[in-house]
Amino acid sequence: MVATCEIINIGNELLIGKIVNSNASWLSNKITYLGYNVSRITVVSDNICEIANSIQEAQSRHPHVIIITGGLGPTFDDITLEGLAKALNVSTKLNQKALNMIKKKYVTLGLNMTKERIKMAKFPENADALQNPVGTAPGCLIKSNDVLIIALPGVPQEMKEIFESLTPKFKKISGKFFFDETSFDVTGISESELAPFVKNIMEKYDLIYIKSHPQKTKQCSKLEIHITGFGNSDQKLRKQISSASLQLKEYILSINGIIK
Amino acid sequence: MVATCEIINIGNELLIGKIVNSNASWLSNKITYLGYNVSRITVVSDNICEIANSIQEAQSRHPHVIIITGGLGPTFDDITLEGLAKALNVSTKLNQKALNMIKKKYVTLGLNMTKERIKMAKFPENADALQNPVGTAPGCLIKSNDVLIIALPGVPQEMKEIFESLTPKFKKISGKFFFDETSFDVTGISESELAPFVKNIMEKYDLIYIKSHPQKTKQCSKLEIHITGFGNSDQKLRKQISSASLQLKEYILSINGIIK
Repeated sequence: MVATCEIINIGNELLIGKIVNSNASWLSNKITYLGYNVSRITVVSDNICEIANSIQEAQSRHPHVIIITGGLGPTFDDITLEGLAKALNVSTKLNQKALNMIKKKYVTLGLNMTKERIKMAKFPENADALQNPVGTAPGCLIKSNDVLIIALPGVPQEMKEIFESLTPKFKKISGKFFFDETSFDVTGISESELAPFVKNIMEKYDLIYIKSHPQKTKQCSKLEIHITGFGNSDQKLRKQISSASLQLKEYILSINGIIK
Repeated sequence: MVATCEIINIGNELLIGKIVNSNASWLSNKITYLGYNVSRITVVSDNICEIANSIQEAQSRHPHVIIITGGLGPTFDDITLEGLAKALNVSTKLNQKALNMIKKKYVTLGLNMTKERIKMAKFPENADALQNPVGTAPGCLIKSNDVLIIALPGVPQEMKEIFESLTPKFKKISGKFFFDETSFDVTGISESELAPFVKNIMEKYDLIYIKSHPQKTKQCSKLEIHITGFGNSDQKLRKQISSASLQLKEYILSINGIIK
C-alpha cells in the first residue's frame, strides 16, 4: 500500500493571502515523488489551539507522516512546538541538542543568547532536533503512535534544506513505491467531449489516474491532460502511463483535437 | 465580531504539487479585504468521502462562510456537488436554472447536451445556481444551518468572476469590518533582536497584529515587517497601524537597523 502524508502549514500570512503557499506545493511534490500519497493539506493560524487541533485531527486519520511548516522562530507567535506538545499531550522542555545548535549559530554571529533565542530550543519531550544548515531554528522530529511528525521552519530555503536531509528516512517508510507522470496539451476539443473516453481508459489500467485541466488565458483556451500513477514496479508503471497516453492521443486525433 | 470564512480546495493536482494553490491565496486575500477572518484552508482529493468530511468538519467549526473550489466540471472525478450533498445529507437533483445556463453555453457552441454536460447541473436540493460568465460549469450557493456555502469552479478565471459577482452578499455578512495592512523591509538586525519590542507594541494596540518574516536569497537576507488589523472604524484602524509602524521604525533605527 502507498504510504500517506499530511501537510500542515502554520501562519496568518497564508490565511490573509499575503503569500502563496509555495511551501505546500514544493513539499507535496517532493514527498509524492518519494512514493507518498499526500492525502490532505491544512493551513491554520498562529494560534495554539488551532495548531494542536489540526495536528490531532491529522493523527486521527492515521497518515504515516505529518509534515508541519512554520512557527519555529523566535517571535511571540512562533508557537508550533508548543502546539505540537499540546496535541501529543506532553510538556515542552529545553532540548539540549537544539540549544547547542542555536548557541553555535549565535556565537558565530557574535550575539548572546536571549530568552527569545532560547525559546527555539523548547521542544516537546522525546523530540529530536534536526540541523538547520541555513538558518537558526532547528527542525523537530517526533514519533507518536507510529506517526512520524516533522516540524520544519516556514522560511522556504530552511524548510527545503532540512527536508532534503530526511530523504532516506522518508524513503524507508514509503518502501518500493514510485510515482510517475506525463502530460500534454490539447486544443480544439472540450473537456466534456473527452470525459467519457478518459473514464474508459482509466478502467483499463489499475495504476494510473487521468485528469484534464481546462486552462484559459485571454489569448487561448487549452486542455492539459495529466496522467499520473503509483506503482511498486517502475517498469510496469511507466508502461501503463505510456500506453494510456498513446491511446488517449489516438482518440483525441480521431475526434479532430490538436495535440501540442 | 469579525465574520469567519473557511476555504476548501478540491483537486489531486494540488496534493501532488503539480500546481501551486493560487486560488487559495487569491480568495483568502479578497475575502480578508471584505472584512473576514479566514480561519482555515483545507485541500482534499477528488474523493467523495474526503470532500464530504472536509465540509462537515468545516461546518462543525461554525464559520459564517465556506468557499469551495474545484470539481464542478464534466469529468467523472468532478464530484464536489455530490460531496456537498452528502455532507449536508440531502440528495442531488437536476437544477433547472443550472441546466438552462449550461444548455445556453453549448447551444452557442453548436454542441449537444451529453450526460457529462447534464451532470454539471446536478445540484444539492435547495441550492441556487450562480452564473459563470466565462465558462460552462455554474457555481453553487446553498445555506445550511446559517452557514453560507459557495462552490466555485477550479479554473482561476471562472472562480474569480463568480466570486466577484458575490461581493455584495459577502459584505452584507461581514458588516462594518475593515481590514488594512502596511509593510516595510528591514536589514542589519535579526528577527530575535526585534521580537521583544514587537510584543510590547502589540500589547499597546488592540486592533493590530505584527509579524516579522525573515527572507533569504543568495544575494541578501532581510526581514519583512507586516502590520495588519481588523476594525469597525476605518480611521481608528489606520491610526493604530500608522502609530505602530512609526514606533517600530524608530526602535529599529535606534538599534542600528536599516529600513528600506
